[in-house]
Amino acid sequence: MSLSRLSGKISVMEKAKPSLDEVFFPRGVAVVGVSPSGGGSFATGVTLSLKEAGFPAIYPVNPKYTELFGLPCYPSVRSIPGVVDHVVVSIPAESALALLDDCAAKGVKSVHFFTAGFSESGYEDRAELERAMLSKAKAGGFRIIGPNCIGLFVPRSRLVNSMGVPLEPGPVAFISQSGGHAQNLPFYGGQRGLRFSKSVSYGNALDVDECELLEYLLRDPDTEIIGAYIEGVKDGRHFLRVLEEVASHKPVAIYKGGTTEAGLRAAHGHTASLTSSVAVFEALCRQTGTIQVDDADELVDVLVALNFVRPLPQGTGVAVVGAGGGPSVSASDEMEKVGLSVPRLSPEVQSELKKYLPLAGSIFNNPVDTPNLASPEAMLAALRVVGRVPDIHMVVYHMGFHPISRWGGGRFSSADFLKSATDALRQAHEETGTPILLALNPATDLNGINDFLAVQEVFVGAGFPVFHSLRQAARAMARVVAWNQKLGH
Amino acid sequence: MSLSRLSGKISVMEKAKPSLDEVFFPRGVAVVGVSPSGGGSFATGVTLSLKEAGFPAIYPVNPKYTELFGLPCYPSVRSIPGVVDHVVVSIPAESALALLDDCAAKGVKSVHFFTAGFSESGYEDRAELERAMLSKAKAGGFRIIGPNCIGLFVPRSRLVNSMGVPLEPGPVAFISQSGGHAQNLPFYGGQRGLRFSKSVSYGNALDVDECELLEYLLRDPDTEIIGAYIEGVKDGRHFLRVLEEVASHKPVAIYKGGTTEAGLRAAHGHTASLTSSVAVFEALCRQTGTIQVDDADELVDVLVALNFVRPLPQGTGVAVVGAGGGPSVSASDEMEKVGLSVPRLSPEVQSELKKYLPLAGSIFNNPVDTPNLASPEAMLAALRVVGRVPDIHMVVYHMGFHPISRWGGGRFSSADFLKSATDALRQAHEETGTPILLALNPATDLNGINDFLAVQEVFVGAGFPVFHSLRQAARAMARVVAWNQKLGH
Repeated sequence: MSLSRLSGKISVMEKAKPSLDEVFFPRGVAVVGVSPSGGGSFATGVTLSLKEAGFPAIYPVNPKYTELFGLPCYPSVRSIPGVVDHVVVSIPAESALALLDDCAAKGVKSVHFFTAGFSESGYEDRAELERAMLSKAKAGGFRIIGPNCIGLFVPRSRLVNSMGVPLEPGPVAFISQSGGHAQNLPFYGGQRGLRFSKSVSYGNALDVDECELLEYLLRDPDTEIIGAYIEGVKDGRHFLRVLEEVASHKPVAIYKGGTTEAGLRAAHGHTASLTSSVAVFEALCRQTGTIQVDDADELVDVLVALNFVRPLPQGTGVAVVGAGGGPSVSASDEMEKVGLSVPRLSPEVQSELKKYLPLAGSIFNNPVDTPNLASPEAMLAALRVVGRVPDIHMVVYHMGFHPISRWGGGRFSSADFLKSATDALRQAHEETGTPILLALNPATDLNGINDFLAVQEVFVGAGFPVFHSLRQAARAMARVVAWNQKLGH
Repeated sequence: MSLSRLSGKISVMEKAKPSLDEVFFPRGVAVVGVSPSGGGSFATGVTLSLKEAGFPAIYPVNPKYTELFGLPCYPSVRSIPGVVDHVVVSIPAESALALLDDCAAKGVKSVHFFTAGFSESGYEDRAELERAMLSKAKAGGFRIIGPNCIGLFVPRSRLVNSMGVPLEPGPVAFISQSGGHAQNLPFYGGQRGLRFSKSVSYGNALDVDECELLEYLLRDPDTEIIGAYIEGVKDGRHFLRVLEEVASHKPVAIYKGGTTEAGLRAAHGHTASLTSSVAVFEALCRQTGTIQVDDADELVDVLVALNFVRPLPQGTGVAVVGAGGGPSVSASDEMEKVGLSVPRLSPEVQSELKKYLPLAGSIFNNPVDTPNLASPEAMLAALRVVGRVPDIHMVVYHMGFHPISRWGGGRFSSADFLKSATDALRQAHEETGTPILLALNPATDLNGINDFLAVQEVFVGAGFPVFHSLRQAARAMARVVAWNQKLGH
């Protein structure tokens, strides 16, 4: 199934701006504020990340050095001999205006300020400084990303801002007012199989803002699914119009930071955001068909669901399969609390299950709990049986990596077991046409995490949606099913 | 502060039973159903765990062998030459009655059935079998734990049922109808510093049930704090009376499994529990001053809070301190959502903070977000300032182990940093008298988990309460503060 069913004619938006392509696909990047001792600094991290990613033209800028990290280092942006389209800045705010003159002289296309301490500080002179920066950018014909953010991650152009993120391009775009979320989401999403067209951290949104980014992503052929972390918007009416248009063509999931009084205050101090009330934001999501989520983990979960659950379930019925009475009870509670259903299996279906599963220590009526499911044969048999039940719209298979699950002697992470298990999951999925989701519960000890990572890698590699708890699977699927049903698919 | 302030005269309960001491402190243990090939079996796991824990008299029973795992193996319980007080059973349900005759002949004090497939299977003949087992136990003068559970963990008597759990005794008791929770809670609680008097998995509660266990724990001098996972109770009125008495002397936190229709059904299939409605259970917790939690993780969190937060906060005011704008916004939202407050710091306090913290990239008005808090000096200064503010009742210091937090080059897990940080936390705690909680956000990658575990070990070792996210800290503290305020402390 492709999410392109959402596609259709894109209506003309007001005051279409020049494309951000020039921002996302720079030919050369200057990094201002790199120093050899800055092992933990952003500028150094970006320089090394760009090198590792194989970005072709990286220019460190620092008047004190002629070479840094094996690269020629320049005293200023304008002294760089090659083409510089994008400039990454990590120098004190006080030097921002002089730097922008330097950038204008060089004819750059965009300047990203990691530097913070602008309007979000609450000082009027810092807000004024921001306005002066914007004037210089407009006069100089270039764009500003930020300030107070970690900027751009564009796998297709090898423009990266950290290590450990997936360099293979993919259909997910993420925009974020928080630098932390902008870095963590591609990292953790990447572990769970998400691949990105762009991830943009835009901080104070002085110039490029959420509306312009969303409009771009709507038209971006590389982007199919959109996630966002937003603390506040400048123009609520405009945002509503943009979101309405974008969400009617591509699925959009938003985590709104600052939903309480203290949260709003923190958001103002973080990115100078003037946010509207939660109720207004919720109404806006409902009206536009946007999926609203409650935190950063849930945003990853919903993106994973949109990207990997095939077909998207047409109803709320869940079969829960896996080992453990406690988890089975919890699973039922978690599913029903968020509005999914765990339909009782008919006596006929239960009899069928009993052919394959042992009586002792098992539950058959849904959840299906059996100690023997670690055997791929029993797993396949159970998944086949429940996947064919008409009021089951999705199957969640859960595995714990807690000590109790390791009585099996680490069998979970053995290559043979994982191959058979993957084959079983694939076969059951193909034969029944019912989506299979995996809830892998990571432990917080070294043995557990090693097993967990090995299993996750294989299942993600096989194209299955992986969640980190039954609760997380439940919450994400409740959101996606509600969204899907509302769209009338 | 000691929780003994809850102590007082314990009123006489009806039909006081003989103490369970004989069950918890056996002189010899037989394990029935061990086999050399059973690498993943419960009986083998228990035998090896007892050996590793140094339990003095372990007797494997299997007529096919004369020695197993370096221990003499016996054909039956009655053929064991030494004293056998406790018997662990993992053989098919069909052999249960014959085994109990064997146990009666030997004069044992208690029999724990790991074996499942009894009343919880839904078959009448299996329920009848259970009743026959109970008759045999009563006639034989011994007790039954379970069936369908993992039994007893009593560090003081070295009676263990798994590996990796803390063998040092401590003040926390846990009773659980789920074997999974009974094994995971001591393991994960142990990592976070909890030490146990007893952890009892009692499954179908055929003989020893939640009421008897709670009555025992009330009088148990080794137990100060009680946690429970309960799916259902047999006699609601009796349970109410017992809980009222117990909870008025020692703090009790309960996770009720089966709070939805599907969850109730699963609970019935899991431990044959006939559970009452959620509303009834909630009312019962309110009435008795019991802390009710929503899941197994939250149960650990509340036990950690009860065990380590000193003093228990007298109000809801939280200061949140740590690095990251996104986390600061989320923290504020999470705290206020659950009923805690994040009071704005006065201009005077903010000015004081600005002496120690940089302007750029910081938020001062609470949460206190600053990129430099990884420096122990700045950390101490900030904790001192906020800890002295009158409407701040607790300080939550948060650290992420996400990739972005590792720009510092793994500094978090260096021994020097950790020592200075621990000293700073201790000093701030002593000087201000305000409790300090740590929210350490584990990553799900190997580098992150390694850093996380190193940091957790040091802070736990220093006696600080450690939570695994700001949300978890918020939820647990909201519960504990409400409980504490209700008790009028």
